[in-house]
Amino acid sequence: MANDSHTQPILITGGTGFAGRHLIQALLDDGFQNIHTTHFGNSPVPEVCQNEAVSIHQVNLTEAEAVAQLIKAVQPAQIYHLASFAAVGKSFEQAGAILQNNIMLQLHVLNAVQQHAPQAKILIIGSAEEYGRIPQDKLGQKIDESYPLNPVNPYAVTKVTQDLLAQAFYFSFKLNILRVRPFNHIGEGQSPDFVIPAFASQIVAVEKGTQECLKVGKLDSVRDFTDVKDMVRAYIIVMNVGEVGDVYNIGSGTGWKISEVLDMLLAHSTQKIKVEVDETRLRPSDVEYFVADAHRIQELGWSPQVPLSETLERILNEWREKV
Amino acid sequence: MANDSHTQPILITGGTGFAGRHLIQALLDDGFQNIHTTHFGNSPVPEVCQNEAVSIHQVNLTEAEAVAQLIKAVQPAQIYHLASFAAVGKSFEQAGAILQNNIMLQLHVLNAVQQHAPQAKILIIGSAEEYGRIPQDKLGQKIDESYPLNPVNPYAVTKVTQDLLAQAFYFSFKLNILRVRPFNHIGEGQSPDFVIPAFASQIVAVEKGTQECLKVGKLDSVRDFTDVKDMVRAYIIVMNVGEVGDVYNIGSGTGWKISEVLDMLLAHSTQKIKVEVDETRLRPSDVEYFVADAHRIQELGWSPQVPLSETLERILNEWREKV
Repeated sequence: MANDSHTQPILITGGTGFAGRHLIQALLDDGFQNIHTTHFGNSPVPEVCQNEAVSIHQVNLTEAEAVAQLIKAVQPAQIYHLASFAAVGKSFEQAGAILQNNIMLQLHVLNAVQQHAPQAKILIIGSAEEYGRIPQDKLGQKIDESYPLNPVNPYAVTKVTQDLLAQAFYFSFKLNILRVRPFNHIGEGQSPDFVIPAFASQIVAVEKGTQECLKVGKLDSVRDFTDVKDMVRAYIIVMNVGEVGDVYNIGSGTGWKISEVLDMLLAHSTQKIKVEVDETRLRPSDVEYFVADAHRIQELGWSPQVPLSETLERILNEWREKV
Repeated sequence: MANDSHTQPILITGGTGFAGRHLIQALLDDGFQNIHTTHFGNSPVPEVCQNEAVSIHQVNLTEAEAVAQLIKAVQPAQIYHLASFAAVGKSFEQAGAILQNNIMLQLHVLNAVQQHAPQAKILIIGSAEEYGRIPQDKLGQKIDESYPLNPVNPYAVTKVTQDLLAQAFYFSFKLNILRVRPFNHIGEGQSPDFVIPAFASQIVAVEKGTQECLKVGKLDSVRDFTDVKDMVRAYIIVMNVGEVGDVYNIGSGTGWKISEVLDMLLAHSTQKIKVEVDETRLRPSDVEYFVADAHRIQELGWSPQVPLSETLERILNEWREKV
């Protein structure tokens, strides 16, 4: 049954993006009735938004005044600031655009909240990429929130900047800011610029005969994969019961070699698929072992629910319908 | 006597600014013969640049292409990247401009070096402000380079971004990057937006009868003051004998209460001056104790030479001639 807190306006920036659409679904499932999301450009609006509880605002978040007007009008009680340019692999080529975009969006949101909705809670989405290069003496250890920030690419640098700029606004103006550093998360709707959908889309292309073999980059890195549905549940938990001013890692806490995940995907395929290393897919610097020490978010009552194999099968099926 | 290394081109961005002009003087004193500095806008070019060893380039560093052309033309062996917007006190009001300016300038320099002078050594100027809020269990301790970065204002956030973006370029492309985090430094030519020249200019105004009393902000913070002449010598040392990829704190290692420094300044005055606290000079968040653990730069052979009292007297005399 809905209570007051379920009718308060909730604003999601970038709610029509990858994590955003899953977050909207989770909020709807939880009975929230007054959800607002921004959308910009011509990309299709996901189906989940075709719901009377969801309002779509066409807003260019790079314009400070447009963000201010939006927040003034919606008067959100909670803001999930998801909008961000997220292509790690391209982030050296596009460093200028990515720095400009992610940092200025963040600033516009913080300024607008300070001016027009100073009581709103704001969830800032950082990234495990902020930790970047792990110090020699800590290699192979799980990463907690006190690890030093040594980002290795411009995307990761923008996430540090977002994270610390938000913290500075918290220190100085006591805005109700919460921060998360999500580790890798996967699911339907993710761009094939990311490793798992890149594999899945190619496997399906090979199955359908439009591609000869599966091209891959580095396979020996270890990553912590969480289903996007589990990830957005963590966002909701941090927003509602997290400590204002604090930062939370979010990740399953389990490390998988990329090659193991690839094998699991291939096991779900209907064919025997040839795998080939493609030098152009190797990034100039990449981190070997990246697994969350997520005890702080676990203490808030969160744990991952969806087994990796199930997530991978869903992703493959998505591409089978799409390609 | 000059050797080869003294005829190689050295580029200083922002060499006509506060630290820049002192750096040029120090390089001239050391016998460097091929010094290039950028300059932009209508502010007067300091006297030190009236020297045949110094070339001035009118360049708008916010334009990527202009920076690229400059570095292509000069082919510097060493780049001191000093240009930056440095007003901490105004950095919340001007957060957009300051983020944009400092981060994009840094990116333009790194991109230009990677493309046109990949062998050049680059010194990146961060700030002690990057450390920001000191964790509870470390309050009152000297700050070494491994302290967590918790900037409390947008200026400090830009310095973290510059610092870590440079490090990402070092990790990924092995550019010859060195980084410093200078603590407070003072001397002739500093804007009265900073605390010491703000005091000095007002003391002189009271001496000359154009102001009634000295208005001050918070006086109980502890800061580590270094003469700008000592500071730029540290830059030259790090550039020439520092470890590429590393970062060095620069500061005297001695903490002074702002009130003590004020008393020293007042002792140099010819009059008894009334001091009044001005609420508008209190920043929304400020750090209490900020003193460098500078053992790493000391190991390179640096130590501060100029006593604080001497520096303060020089600054007062500067304002007596100017006001």
